[in-house]
Amino acid sequence: MNWSLPEDLSTPALVVDHDALVANVARMAASMGERGVALRPHAKTHKSLAIAALQRAHGASGLTVATVGEAEVFAEDGWDDIFIAYPVIAQRDKARRLAHLGRRMHLSVGVDSVDGAALLVAAGLAGMVTAMIEIDSGQHRTGVAPEDAGDLAEAVTRRGLQVEGVFTHGGQSYRAPGAPAGAARDEVVQLGRAVEALERRDVAVVRVSAGSSPTVMGSAVPPVTEERPGTYVFNDRQQVALGAAETAQVALAVAATVVSTAVRGQVVLDAGSKSLGSDRPAWLTGFGVVPELGGAVVTTLSECHAIVDLGDHPPPRVGTMVRVVPNHVCPVVNLFDSYSVVSTGEVIDRWPVAARGHLS
Amino acid sequence: MNWSLPEDLSTPALVVDHDALVANVARMAASMGERGVALRPHAKTHKSLAIAALQRAHGASGLTVATVGEAEVFAEDGWDDIFIAYPVIAQRDKARRLAHLGRRMHLSVGVDSVDGAALLVAAGLAGMVTAMIEIDSGQHRTGVAPEDAGDLAEAVTRRGLQVEGVFTHGGQSYRAPGAPAGAARDEVVQLGRAVEALERRDVAVVRVSAGSSPTVMGSAVPPVTEERPGTYVFNDRQQVALGAAETAQVALAVAATVVSTAVRGQVVLDAGSKSLGSDRPAWLTGFGVVPELGGAVVTTLSECHAIVDLGDHPPPRVGTMVRVVPNHVCPVVNLFDSYSVVSTGEVIDRWPVAARGHLS
Repeated sequence: MNWSLPEDLSTPALVVDHDALVANVARMAASMGERGVALRPHAKTHKSLAIAALQRAHGASGLTVATVGEAEVFAEDGWDDIFIAYPVIAQRDKARRLAHLGRRMHLSVGVDSVDGAALLVAAGLAGMVTAMIEIDSGQHRTGVAPEDAGDLAEAVTRRGLQVEGVFTHGGQSYRAPGAPAGAARDEVVQLGRAVEALERRDVAVVRVSAGSSPTVMGSAVPPVTEERPGTYVFNDRQQVALGAAETAQVALAVAATVVSTAVRGQVVLDAGSKSLGSDRPAWLTGFGVVPELGGAVVTTLSECHAIVDLGDHPPPRVGTMVRVVPNHVCPVVNLFDSYSVVSTGEVIDRWPVAARGHLS
Repeated sequence: MNWSLPEDLSTPALVVDHDALVANVARMAASMGERGVALRPHAKTHKSLAIAALQRAHGASGLTVATVGEAEVFAEDGWDDIFIAYPVIAQRDKARRLAHLGRRMHLSVGVDSVDGAALLVAAGLAGMVTAMIEIDSGQHRTGVAPEDAGDLAEAVTRRGLQVEGVFTHGGQSYRAPGAPAGAARDEVVQLGRAVEALERRDVAVVRVSAGSSPTVMGSAVPPVTEERPGTYVFNDRQQVALGAAETAQVALAVAATVVSTAVRGQVVLDAGSKSLGSDRPAWLTGFGVVPELGGAVVTTLSECHAIVDLGDHPPPRVGTMVRVVPNHVCPVVNLFDSYSVVSTGEVIDRWPVAARGHLS
């Protein structure tokens, strides 16, 4: 983290270093370009029109989102190829909103059940959206078993919905340091099985989509045609601990101020669960790390208080501003209305978190 | 939770039952009224002008907030007695913003260090804000030891800042079921010591302020003159587990839809850490409970996925709408732009989460 904070921030603040961000975006684009794999970045991480535009300038083939609301925000800004990588349920207002989107762009959506496909068809969306069959490659969250993907794809096709391909998220990559390599192999192997299962039912497979920032380098090989990493634009404490990024590649931090030194051995920052999130994998201690305090860890969070265990570090004065590198950056961005964009220690821009709160 | 969901929600949605809410607000107001203790509810929970107005209608003496930004939102709506119960650091833009607020209302702020007080004075705020000395009654987060409160109050007064009283938050009430009773005693005892410490230095004590929803009933006794509970307006899974509320008093849930039943023994809802938060006390399993699925628990959260372990409950169909009672409601409200206000199963209003994102 070879970048520094401006002095004129109002804390807590969401700070992104422009140079580190651009380097991350360019590096991923170059890696995927070399492999001939399409890059369809997940915009749930940044929720920002400016960062999506940067990804487009570096050759992103389209965008991935998690919700209909996120798709609407990026569609409004001119994106015309969006994948809602989620088992979309086309009920109530979502039926109408999906139709509005599907009529004007290439919109693909996740499907992992016949019932889900039937709701898409009942909403009149056949011909407006394409289905990507979700398979479970080991996370055991959503998605059918690869060997069942052929049955599902055939049932979907029979209902008049076009199947465009298969996708998975090897989220087991987050289970422990060391997990990403195996998770990447799982993605490739299980997607391969799913492709065979679809082809046995004469369903043509155009897109084979894998993705998570920890697995992207390992899984960008045939039969995978597309990757959907999100977190790589910023990185975070978890990505570094997983070995998916180096500390020098962390482009985002929450700027916070020391507000209390009253209890010995610790300081309290004006960050908390409402600015850092409470995500903590079982294998990581605490809720963030503070480079300016010798790598001290946030041990306890309240909503607007972050307690940092100082260890041997001399206590800073009340009023000192520091950076906190959060465990998991995606929920953090979602807590702020805008980014303070810095370069060489100066605020050069303010970018809205445009899709924040577009949860449904 | 004797209330039900309307059918026309777009999930995930933040749903508050109007009748349960009003009952909670009225019950707390009546309890504090009987004891002659002022009720200054913490608005960080609801961040809503409508709910604050309801609290005023039920006799709230003033409002408590956590940030300068929250104070601004409620001041704009006519509140003229606000306590920022936080060690406020009056630097940069906050100096100007505090002055703007302090000139037009009774504004009190937390102080737990001489440095913090000196920054308030340096910002020209003496005469515009009053100081409430924060003491540590056992949470060990912020606040000076009660026996040091006299020294701090004297130093603050000497700098020209008026000390109005003392306050504490017995946050150790959240450490385990059974903890609230002891935490309430801690608040009363330690505030008593602090009052004595101030009086020994001839600092007059006007307000003695305690507060947290689990301790409010236990600590509303002399010398406490004011209580600052927040969560009581909605309650949540944690309050019920702590014995601070009954299930029938839970007025808020996140409405979510079953989006996947692909993995046996579980269902996935379209809620997640971006709508339920990730708060989980060590003594509670999972991230929320689903009344419509026999009290099944959300065992795993991704950002937009909540995995519910069905246990013996028969699997619901994809598309079924359910309520999730979150562990901790305060960070949940902060994730939404508005409440769907329901009564007898119909949406009767939509209230903005007006102070959402006003973090600094």
